Amino acid sequence: MICGRTHEELLRDIKNFHGYVAPGLVIGAFMVDVAYRLLEKNVEADVIVETKHCLPDAIQIFSPCTVGNGWLKILDLDKFAMAFHDRHTHAGIRIWLDLKKAEAHPNIYKWFMGQVSKKDLPSEVLVADIMKAGDDILSHAPVVVIKNAQREKKGAIRVCDRCREAYSASQGEICLACQGLGYYMQAAANA
Amino acid sequence: MICGRTHEELLRDIKNFHGYVAPGLVIGAFMVDVAYRLLEKNVEADVIVETKHCLPDAIQIFSPCTVGNGWLKILDLDKFAMAFHDRHTHAGIRIWLDLKKAEAHPNIYKWFMGQVSKKDLPSEVLVADIMKAGDDILSHAPVVVIKNAQREKKGAIRVCDRCREAYSASQGEICLACQGLGYYMQAAANA
Repeated sequence: MICGRTHEELLRDIKNFHGYVAPGLVIGAFMVDVAYRLLEKNVEADVIVETKHCLPDAIQIFSPCTVGNGWLKILDLDKFAMAFHDRHTHAGIRIWLDLKKAEAHPNIYKWFMGQVSKKDLPSEVLVADIMKAGDDILSHAPVVVIKNAQREKKGAIRVCDRCREAYSASQGEICLACQGLGYYMQAAANA
Repeated sequence: MICGRTHEELLRDIKNFHGYVAPGLVIGAFMVDVAYRLLEKNVEADVIVETKHCLPDAIQIFSPCTVGNGWLKILDLDKFAMAFHDRHTHAGIRIWLDLKKAEAHPNIYKWFMGQVSKKDLPSEVLVADIMKAGDDILSHAPVVVIKNAQREKKGAIRVCDRCREAYSASQGEICLACQGLGYYMQAAANA
């Protein structure tokens, strides 16, 4: 059992949430599994993930931590790693894909390093190899999180004088979007 | 039915994913529902959400878009709004909580503006009011997304000379973490 699931359940849950069985999420399931085996029981664990690609979904499927509940933070370091940590003491465990270990699993290594095309390495073959490798390709180390460890609280809210929408008062007199940081052009209003 | 679910199923799915029935996610479900009613059929819709609090989870539960698959992007504008858009044309629909309309629903308005304590407005009362209000408190407008519309591709990968982990080559000679942007202190290695 990985994260309390059979292999079939694991792949099904990945497909349901992520849309397809991404190999990175299968590795991610083993990473979350390692974390919860190593964390002390009853720890309230938050997690920092070091990439926005794929891996956040493994955490959201296989742990209680999500982006929206604030227990998962995403750092854009583009590394295949995560650190679960006690939300109070900030002590925890970092788990990463260990390239040295992955060398013993050539398909996984080549896929991870972008050295093989999907045509030459079908997803089913790769996923089967990942399932076989399990946590053989992972390493972990105890860490203390010293940045981004605190949960963020929502601050005071005010109404923007320009767009009349609510926003965080800490942004200033008008909202960030009205300050020019918006991302869209509006067509005819339809309220 | 909202997002293809009965009220009970909707609340159950929120609790399972998010950990508890956050009022913001219930509103979020109605927002996603509005989006998919207005989007043309067969559009491949990506989405931008304008806050990292709560609302991303509604999108991840009630649409195929997740952080990890890249179809959901989170902008930290701290506004309660989202824009679903055609991933090819970038045309779409923005949906937001309309404060003017919410005034007709005092509990929702007061909760949203942080003007009432949880003790004075129990979550069950608030959620029932949100269910009754449905999309009465929402507005929407057609938009064209002009920033952050493109899906990001993973670039070339290399091995960091310092930590020996893989990272995106675009970060430079060593990885961002080794450049000083890390977030943890490591205790004894355990590989």
